[in-house]
Amino acid sequence: MAPDDIPTPPRDRPALPDRRAFMAAGMLFALAPGAAAQQTLPGHKGDQGMYGLIGRMIAAPGKRDELAAILLEGTGGMPGCLSYIIAADPAHADALWITEAWDSRESHAASLKLPAVQAAIARGRPLIAGFDSRSETVPLGGHGLAAAAAVTDPT
Amino acid sequence: MAPDDIPTPPRDRPALPDRRAFMAAGMLFALAPGAAAQQTLPGHKGDQGMYGLIGRMIAAPGKRDELAAILLEGTGGMPGCLSYIIAADPAHADALWITEAWDSRESHAASLKLPAVQAAIARGRPLIAGFDSRSETVPLGGHGLAAAAAVTDPT
Repeated sequence: MAPDDIPTPPRDRPALPDRRAFMAAGMLFALAPGAAAQQTLPGHKGDQGMYGLIGRMIAAPGKRDELAAILLEGTGGMPGCLSYIIAADPAHADALWITEAWDSRESHAASLKLPAVQAAIARGRPLIAGFDSRSETVPLGGHGLAAAAAVTDPT
Repeated sequence: MAPDDIPTPPRDRPALPDRRAFMAAGMLFALAPGAAAQQTLPGHKGDQGMYGLIGRMIAAPGKRDELAAILLEGTGGMPGCLSYIIAADPAHADALWITEAWDSRESHAASLKLPAVQAAIARGRPLIAGFDSRSETVPLGGHGLAAAAAVTDPT
């Protein structure tokens, strides 16, 4: 494959039908319990490492701002959350990038049980049209993580 | 295109030859002056909005940790940098995800001129084998941005 031919996800329409899209989107900001129990990935620090997610969600047409607001309102103050940033995709009027960093995979899984997160899922579901990218990561460090950790985990 | 056939970048080898790879990688954490002067993207807040980057870099075989360390050392305390997180890709032994949020496109462009960033480019160049994903974003908000901003921009 030539470098210029690197395939990329389609940018002009949702890539998944509604039901599957929600399942995938739900896994991004509220990983399903079954998925949380999967084996530890071969990351930098193993079980003791941080846990991250990078994904792109497609909102229903014209609903990006509304969906972003729901995600932002429903995901503040989550224990162990080191970074949670919602960004618009300037190349796609309905796409949102969501990047997350957690102190552990377990903290991310535990966030599922927070009433605010569950409420965000319920409110956001009808506004999600698709989901075309999702990658787990093992954050190694950087700027913004420690300051955020101090806010969410004062111990 | 069927949902199951969504193409994704190759995960098992660098996607770009060395010279082009460095050019692309350099654009991620130190956008070239010419690129910085490009037209403003149709983002959420236009010129006054935040500016973000999400990209995946492929290190030379076995050099991921070394490259990550260089990126982390060379990019601390950049004015206007709201978040800069380096993460390992658990699915690719040599891949790093880099996610950035800045208070403006201009702050990101200005960071190019910082001696520490220029030194990081020079040190990191031989360790970069490829670069297979790069997306600009317009961060809308989230957790970790404000705390980071207070550290880098005390005014």
